[in-house]
Amino acid sequence: MTLDVDALLAELTLEEKASLTSGSAFWFTAAVDRLGIPRIMVSDGPHGLRAQPGEGDHVGLGGSLPATCFPTASAVASSWNPDLLRRIGVALAREARACRLSVILGPGINIKRSPLCGRNFEYFSEDPYLTGELGLGIVDGIQSQGVGTSVKHFAANNQETDRQRVDTQVDERTLREIYLPAFERIVTAGQPWTIMCSYNKINGVSASQNAWLLTTVLRDEWGFDGLVVSDWGAVYDRVPALVAGLDLEMPPNRPHSPDQIVAAIRAGNLDETVLDARVRTVLTLVDRGVAVLDLDESFDADQHHRLARAAAAESVVLLANSGGLLPLAADARIAVIGEFARTPRFQGAGSSQVNPTRVENALDELTALLPEVGFAAGYGIDDTASDEALRAEAVRLAAEADTVVMFLGLPGADESEGFDRTHMNLPAGQLATLRAVAQVNSRVVVVLVNGSTVVLGEVVPHAAAIVEAWLGGQAAGGAIADVLTGRVNPSGRLAETIPHRLADNSSYLNFPGDSQVVRYGEGLFVGYRGYDATDTDVAFPFGFGLSYTTFAVDELVVSTSGAVADGTLTAQVSVRVRNTGPVAGAQVVQVYVRDVAASVARPVRELKGFGKVELAPGQARTVTVTLDQRAFSFFSQLLGRWVVEAGEFAVEVGFHSRDLPLSSTIRVDAPSIAAPITAGSTLHEWMADPVALELIGEAVAAGASDPTRDTELVAVIGSMPMSTLAAFSGMSIDHDTLDRLVERWRERTGG
Amino acid sequence: MTLDVDALLAELTLEEKASLTSGSAFWFTAAVDRLGIPRIMVSDGPHGLRAQPGEGDHVGLGGSLPATCFPTASAVASSWNPDLLRRIGVALAREARACRLSVILGPGINIKRSPLCGRNFEYFSEDPYLTGELGLGIVDGIQSQGVGTSVKHFAANNQETDRQRVDTQVDERTLREIYLPAFERIVTAGQPWTIMCSYNKINGVSASQNAWLLTTVLRDEWGFDGLVVSDWGAVYDRVPALVAGLDLEMPPNRPHSPDQIVAAIRAGNLDETVLDARVRTVLTLVDRGVAVLDLDESFDADQHHRLARAAAAESVVLLANSGGLLPLAADARIAVIGEFARTPRFQGAGSSQVNPTRVENALDELTALLPEVGFAAGYGIDDTASDEALRAEAVRLAAEADTVVMFLGLPGADESEGFDRTHMNLPAGQLATLRAVAQVNSRVVVVLVNGSTVVLGEVVPHAAAIVEAWLGGQAAGGAIADVLTGRVNPSGRLAETIPHRLADNSSYLNFPGDSQVVRYGEGLFVGYRGYDATDTDVAFPFGFGLSYTTFAVDELVVSTSGAVADGTLTAQVSVRVRNTGPVAGAQVVQVYVRDVAASVARPVRELKGFGKVELAPGQARTVTVTLDQRAFSFFSQLLGRWVVEAGEFAVEVGFHSRDLPLSSTIRVDAPSIAAPITAGSTLHEWMADPVALELIGEAVAAGASDPTRDTELVAVIGSMPMSTLAAFSGMSIDHDTLDRLVERWRERTGG
Repeated sequence: MTLDVDALLAELTLEEKASLTSGSAFWFTAAVDRLGIPRIMVSDGPHGLRAQPGEGDHVGLGGSLPATCFPTASAVASSWNPDLLRRIGVALAREARACRLSVILGPGINIKRSPLCGRNFEYFSEDPYLTGELGLGIVDGIQSQGVGTSVKHFAANNQETDRQRVDTQVDERTLREIYLPAFERIVTAGQPWTIMCSYNKINGVSASQNAWLLTTVLRDEWGFDGLVVSDWGAVYDRVPALVAGLDLEMPPNRPHSPDQIVAAIRAGNLDETVLDARVRTVLTLVDRGVAVLDLDESFDADQHHRLARAAAAESVVLLANSGGLLPLAADARIAVIGEFARTPRFQGAGSSQVNPTRVENALDELTALLPEVGFAAGYGIDDTASDEALRAEAVRLAAEADTVVMFLGLPGADESEGFDRTHMNLPAGQLATLRAVAQVNSRVVVVLVNGSTVVLGEVVPHAAAIVEAWLGGQAAGGAIADVLTGRVNPSGRLAETIPHRLADNSSYLNFPGDSQVVRYGEGLFVGYRGYDATDTDVAFPFGFGLSYTTFAVDELVVSTSGAVADGTLTAQVSVRVRNTGPVAGAQVVQVYVRDVAASVARPVRELKGFGKVELAPGQARTVTVTLDQRAFSFFSQLLGRWVVEAGEFAVEVGFHSRDLPLSSTIRVDAPSIAAPITAGSTLHEWMADPVALELIGEAVAAGASDPTRDTELVAVIGSMPMSTLAAFSGMSIDHDTLDRLVERWRERTGG
Repeated sequence: MTLDVDALLAELTLEEKASLTSGSAFWFTAAVDRLGIPRIMVSDGPHGLRAQPGEGDHVGLGGSLPATCFPTASAVASSWNPDLLRRIGVALAREARACRLSVILGPGINIKRSPLCGRNFEYFSEDPYLTGELGLGIVDGIQSQGVGTSVKHFAANNQETDRQRVDTQVDERTLREIYLPAFERIVTAGQPWTIMCSYNKINGVSASQNAWLLTTVLRDEWGFDGLVVSDWGAVYDRVPALVAGLDLEMPPNRPHSPDQIVAAIRAGNLDETVLDARVRTVLTLVDRGVAVLDLDESFDADQHHRLARAAAAESVVLLANSGGLLPLAADARIAVIGEFARTPRFQGAGSSQVNPTRVENALDELTALLPEVGFAAGYGIDDTASDEALRAEAVRLAAEADTVVMFLGLPGADESEGFDRTHMNLPAGQLATLRAVAQVNSRVVVVLVNGSTVVLGEVVPHAAAIVEAWLGGQAAGGAIADVLTGRVNPSGRLAETIPHRLADNSSYLNFPGDSQVVRYGEGLFVGYRGYDATDTDVAFPFGFGLSYTTFAVDELVVSTSGAVADGTLTAQVSVRVRNTGPVAGAQVVQVYVRDVAASVARPVRELKGFGKVELAPGQARTVTVTLDQRAFSFFSQLLGRWVVEAGEFAVEVGFHSRDLPLSSTIRVDAPSIAAPITAGSTLHEWMADPVALELIGEAVAAGASDPTRDTELVAVIGSMPMSTLAAFSGMSIDHDTLDRLVERWRERTGG
């Protein structure tokens, strides 16, 4: 501890304390020179730093210091490798230290509710478990080097459209099971230095003013001990935000915000202890962050570039590979087609945009590795009218090549912070070139360069192989060359489903909303949970990815221990995976849990564990995954807590969400989650409870008419509360009798 | 006026007034003998009376007087003929008068949100416009005879599961556009004597206690002057219900409810004028209803049976008719297969169940009309194991017949008030018999007997013709015979879509909810609005139905008059329809409106008018439909009112929702619906407003930096409110400048 927080709190004036809860400039906290409290710097940086060491331009989107541009989140998520994220985190932190930068504003861990979200390239997955594990990896990596993170955007910020005003209307169970778990996982296991609240409202209350979110859930339930910072401009009313739990407003709104806090305290409308608590959090962050201020370090740009290349290669998902077209033969004569091969797109626009230390392109990298590489642009990136000539040239080149490697992708203007896409299509001009090329050469490898998923119905019929390379960062070009030539055996797996059509996505009818409201009408059924619930065929399922080798799984063993009652239920899942093909490769063993029967709607299956293993040809290894009680739980809206319902659960294991050849059913015992019997319980509920049913029998023996006797009638009136039936004049279990029965039920059950 | 309501109100004691707001027995209002206030009787009766003239059994589901069982609502809705409903209404009222019954508890006009709703057979349609027109027809018919109606269940009661506790969570726009318009139409055009509130909660508040619903919307906005009665047992707290606008509690909960009202007034917790208003409504209803008490009328059961037969025939929807298999030739040798031909199912279970005056079965009726009719049961209605022998017998019979008429349908236990279906399938045993029969005879006519839609993927391949006969009431057997033999040319059109799969329905992920909540996550996109929005193929579209003749439309003319500003926009739609086939028949011309571009999500198209015409072969008639301003409006959540947005609207005309060959695009002028420019308006909104854009320009000329200059930047920050941008330190349109600009905008626009 460098700062004596208690002593400083005692010495700070009210104005100084209020000042500390706002930044001092676009990227800096406020200093109090009088007491030796320095300012510390923060910077954008989910996949590379965007350090602007000056005061920043007016919206913080201008130039920045050179930094390694690692693959974007949608790319690295496809690695399904938290350790890779950890290594990238370490590298990011080293670059931050070299800039004397205390907190990196990332990772972004919002769930991909719709394929259209403009910022999907910055997010990991449609699945909360996978997102949490990957996010934890990068947070652990960064913070292991004494640099802080800011896990964002908290919460339910899954679109860019009207993002500052939109009210996300979402039920608590969906928040708890889909939109919050990744934050919960990272907070409870990684204690990020900061959490960044989002711009939007959640059920009518701005995230920055949402006490339930920032205090009840984040601090009281999860035990968060760090600082809550606003997204840049997400504070709409400073005093309620302070009360709700927002420690630091960024960028500063000076002098207004500090003045409002001071005035509120002076007027007796705000308790100064609330301000003290926020200032304590700010000082604690500054204390953590000051260590970097005196550093004189540099980073190894070459090494980081190599890491970026390895990461990009591990992010590639091989979607199709007919007839083993890939990897390319060492002596292949190839035609590289597509402007993206020469003018790479490797990151998205907005606050995450990095000024890279260097940029590789795939054309140069392939040329370096293969004996004969031709090139034709094939199309213009902005899809202009000049494409006919480019297309003709591409067709000529393609006709003469052994194999065509054709790059397709989204223009930069399609993917950015600040707005959402309106479709999932590749540009028509690119597809026209693909069709023309495929007519003259059947050996077409398509390489996709995009941050958000695209529909592939017009690609699949024309491509023998499809390589999803995402926005792979500054070294993507080399990584793509490595995969195409077999130097790297692809092991990426989809972290999000690729549907046949946008309209198949469960959010389709409710994205992006309008009139400043978005209703999460699909509830829990996001991503594969939606496609599975409606049994909708998809182009490429969640978790899918091919390899240059093949794998098999067997010997699934699931053993349980612990008890639901005390929260210790644990399932050990072990499975053997074998490389059954000719080359070394990595496979991701995926473990899904399915609740066989439940009293509430549940997803068909949910990812609850995974393990990535490298295997030499013929080698087998046993992968072990531990499932904790949460893996079997749902959040009960009636009880307001996580519960496990007694019954059977299937543990399904395989290589993607629709390829789960192994399954083991376990029986879980658990306390009843039925609500206590009351007068408001239905006839069905009374009949389902042994004690209540017996009490009805006693009342009937004493002369009441028997409501349970007539099966057909019970079917019609069974869902009526007993209190309603009691009000029906002819019913002889009247209100008074009913009250007595309820009393006796309580006596007998202690309920 | 028989009762002097003012005088009575002055004389009634507090206890007597409280007593009048509850019934006196299961089907009776309370009398006050001292003052000559009689009791009047009400009775279930959407498609036939269920008069229980005694005190009623304990839940009101026991025996009742014989009455004509007309076709259920799902059947008659398929007639698309409000005049038919009017005639049925007249007949129902005559039967009511014969029983001295003052109010018929119907029609049920809830929207078919899901095909699974157990009570769908009692409801009309998935479309609010069609529902409103049909419901208005029956209300007008009944009330024309001095008998009252009770339009139910108000509101958003679209399932049976947990219907007394479930909270329907639905946004106001969806209520206004989907779930309320049929009530609004009937109230404003038909002034039903009573409205029945539903069991469920709407957005957290029970319908019986929902002041917004029962008072603000129903009385203040729509001008309802009748009585609100509870569904039987829908009052959970009598005093708040009284305050909210519930006049009459049924059945009585005596002495509790009257006592609570008296106590609340005595304690000063309830203003007696509230009670007086409710009592005034009750007395007004009694005053309307007393006229029937002294009647000595009977009804013509034969004539009503003939009307029931005609109605059932007009309700039949011919879904398929390959090779003109239907109508059957006069000398056809047919095999009738299926227990439902002998043991007809013609109504559903629950409170709508009628004790019919007689029952026809299709087997007898066909035998009477055709020279050679064999019969085999084919299956047992309860789908038991004995079916193999029945199946073999059916196959033998089918092999020898010219044509097979095979009845398939839902067992009674599948469709009832009180619970919902869990699937849309026909019984497996029936389908097995169909397959077996179709193997020996390719000329199979399938007749469907069901109240809710069933999926037909396992029927279509085995049936040359498909006749959807619904639950057609006591004369359904004759009506089916009339249609099969060509005595009646079928003219029914689907009032609800038949999807390929249940999972294709937009409510699928949210039906029926759990944990006492159902979220209407699909919003507006109910029924065909859902299938159309996701461009999902369906088995038989909304509005579909074949005929024994053919039709063509041409000469569409759309002319508009009036102005949106004063609410008088009107479009006259005229179109010529011609019978182009060999026999007389009726066709339904359907008019849909599509908003070509809108600032909010809107359905692809919506039914806004229709007309049914009878045409002799070769005859042509011009159908004219008037569209009022509401036909072009949506309910703005931002403005809290119905609005028309300027722009193009397509008026699409044809024979079903996916067969609209004629379209005319009209341009509608309308006042801007943009919100006034404020500091909270986004940069995009400022740039889209000519005055605001000019003011930015002036501020820039005076030295502010120009936020509109950089197109790429504007794309990223355009959705930020100007007040947020002003808070960014480097931005020179600061808070004070912004406030001045807003002030000048108001001066210049008067906004």
